[in-house]
Amino acid sequence: MNKKILVVNAGSSSMKWSLFNKKDFSVIANGISERIGINDSFLKMSFNDQEVKETVDLKNHKDAADATIKMWTDNQVISSLEEIELVGFRVVHGGTYFNDSTKLDEKAINLIDECSKFAPLHNPGAIQAIKAFKEVLPKAKLSASFDTAFHSSLPKINYQYPMNKEFADKYGIRKYGMHGISHKFITLKLQEILKKESVNFVNLHIGNGASLCAVKDSKSYDTSMGFTPLAGVMMGTRSGDIDPAIHEYATEAANISLKEFTNILNKKSGLLGVSGYSSDMRDLANKYQEKDENAIFTLELYSQKIVDYLVNYINKVGKNIDALVFTAGVGENSSLMRELVINKLQLPALNIELDKEKNWTSPKNIKEYLLISSKNSLIPVYVIRTNEELLIAQDALKLNS
Amino acid sequence: MNKKILVVNAGSSSMKWSLFNKKDFSVIANGISERIGINDSFLKMSFNDQEVKETVDLKNHKDAADATIKMWTDNQVISSLEEIELVGFRVVHGGTYFNDSTKLDEKAINLIDECSKFAPLHNPGAIQAIKAFKEVLPKAKLSASFDTAFHSSLPKINYQYPMNKEFADKYGIRKYGMHGISHKFITLKLQEILKKESVNFVNLHIGNGASLCAVKDSKSYDTSMGFTPLAGVMMGTRSGDIDPAIHEYATEAANISLKEFTNILNKKSGLLGVSGYSSDMRDLANKYQEKDENAIFTLELYSQKIVDYLVNYINKVGKNIDALVFTAGVGENSSLMRELVINKLQLPALNIELDKEKNWTSPKNIKEYLLISSKNSLIPVYVIRTNEELLIAQDALKLNS
Repeated sequence: MNKKILVVNAGSSSMKWSLFNKKDFSVIANGISERIGINDSFLKMSFNDQEVKETVDLKNHKDAADATIKMWTDNQVISSLEEIELVGFRVVHGGTYFNDSTKLDEKAINLIDECSKFAPLHNPGAIQAIKAFKEVLPKAKLSASFDTAFHSSLPKINYQYPMNKEFADKYGIRKYGMHGISHKFITLKLQEILKKESVNFVNLHIGNGASLCAVKDSKSYDTSMGFTPLAGVMMGTRSGDIDPAIHEYATEAANISLKEFTNILNKKSGLLGVSGYSSDMRDLANKYQEKDENAIFTLELYSQKIVDYLVNYINKVGKNIDALVFTAGVGENSSLMRELVINKLQLPALNIELDKEKNWTSPKNIKEYLLISSKNSLIPVYVIRTNEELLIAQDALKLNS
Repeated sequence: MNKKILVVNAGSSSMKWSLFNKKDFSVIANGISERIGINDSFLKMSFNDQEVKETVDLKNHKDAADATIKMWTDNQVISSLEEIELVGFRVVHGGTYFNDSTKLDEKAINLIDECSKFAPLHNPGAIQAIKAFKEVLPKAKLSASFDTAFHSSLPKINYQYPMNKEFADKYGIRKYGMHGISHKFITLKLQEILKKESVNFVNLHIGNGASLCAVKDSKSYDTSMGFTPLAGVMMGTRSGDIDPAIHEYATEAANISLKEFTNILNKKSGLLGVSGYSSDMRDLANKYQEKDENAIFTLELYSQKIVDYLVNYINKVGKNIDALVFTAGVGENSSLMRELVINKLQLPALNIELDKEKNWTSPKNIKEYLLISSKNSLIPVYVIRTNEELLIAQDALKLNS
């Protein structure tokens, strides 16, 4: 029997999954359930170069799990439920409880539930999915990988906010960081590429959400997201950092609630809010190439906010720095953004330079990674493809063997 | 008759002043009215190495102006009101109206009043003082110097926030910056020291409030304070930047209003809130020398937040950088803080190094400025004493001659 590992990434109304071969970690199928608990819910699956789509009423995550399994058996993706030996879940927030991936027993599930207060939009969906698959696949071994866990190595000087300590401690306010699964995946991959047991570098995970990570001795040393994913650099729809006194002025001036203002910062800012029309890098890159002033300014601002953290983290990684790495949707696919970012590095004495031709390699010709800096560059610059699902599958296997 | 220039720096309940000789800008006397409009108000003055203190009931700024002038005549600081030819006021916020110092006519006063919405704790006091001296010294020529004016040269990429543009524009939310009078004073002084018509450097104005300024071609290019003085680095009682989604979580968790939370960030954070007992660098430096862990951590955090911006601004000033400059209360007087900051600069290839002995020169032996970097330092580092009152007096003269 061909054993499989299922990886599940669930939100409050969606559930993404990938099914891996346990033997060689090849992907057998992947798909998503959308609009769970809302009207017009549906399932999609890619399998054997085919696309399957089904409209099914999904009242909750249990319905989605049931329907997904039915789709597998109907399409002969699996022949028996027993084939699915391991299930790895992506969980956004592990608070201070989890500094690594974990097997999922009752205690772990309760702790994840406790962390819902820090990630009210994310953790509850994961718990729903965990409970659903626990019921549907009673013999499978369940584990969780956390977006925060890689950052459990942050030193206090980088996780404590310069605010009132008594207040912050009382309510658990500190930097947790996000995208830890991706930052860890890239760290392990860079070790492999450089053939080093331990690496020092800055990882630029730039997708619709974006965070930079200063990695020292293969451990997260600092990261740009904070207590929440709103902090740090400008993103698709999020502002990133702003003056923390704006909230009081803005809510009074516009006569809106703090919730409404925070929502503007989360959903209507960033590329979308500055350009006025799109959070999608591809739209803006096209307009940029047409010399559209608005798109040019938006991408200049975007790259400047990224460089501000990049410079900061080059300094924090220090003189032993091995590399800069671009990853995730924008980082892997936008030659323009990489160029804008690197060209804004103007530190005296520190020459970092792209090989123009290599940087403009078509994304489809970038397999796992590509060195894109010139020979003169004092620090090498790479594009590395991230693969969070693969790391979650590997974690699941490691925890159960 | 020995003509004089009066410089006034008024807050909502206090009014500081300095009286300059018009001829040579020497200081004749300086003093303060405190607790204006509150109980137990009093005046203090330093004059001819004497200290004068008087308890007077000061209901408003007009009372303070009257009492101050009476103190001058009583103590023969002046023999006639006619001697005071010029009065220069420090005004915190000039909005987008003032990109330089200005003579004070009705129109200018009204515009300053309009900017009160951006600086509700500061501009109203200045206007009270302006109106008081306009009445008390009807023949004097009045002018204002603004803390924001030097930053009117900020390019859009540095003053626009990465938030929703329509919303920000509607309510005038952008970076204005503060400490502009000091940043400008240091710029002019550095030109003199380096004998250059135009300078490129990073100015670290670190006092109880603190802001860094990236100066390019002698103009402000970026600065760490923002829409308000809360933004940027950690300060005496202010947090500086934090994750902008903390507000929503914290006000709900602690069941307090946004005003109360912002007040914690402004008044009970920074050195005070992290150490738990003092906002004063001198207290913390003493404890640091006694190897007190809490003081060590507080100052490590403080210097790290400063370095984060410093590195950022070294990159923004770019390859032509002439110097780094420390100024203001902490910057001029704390060898320890300068050492902590410079030691955290670990950029590859960029060696910046203090001359230990020079850096530990006793503050009383630093006249106008001191070079404190070693010969090996790729960028020279200076301490320069700032003098905002002098610049305001010089502005007053320039505007009226």
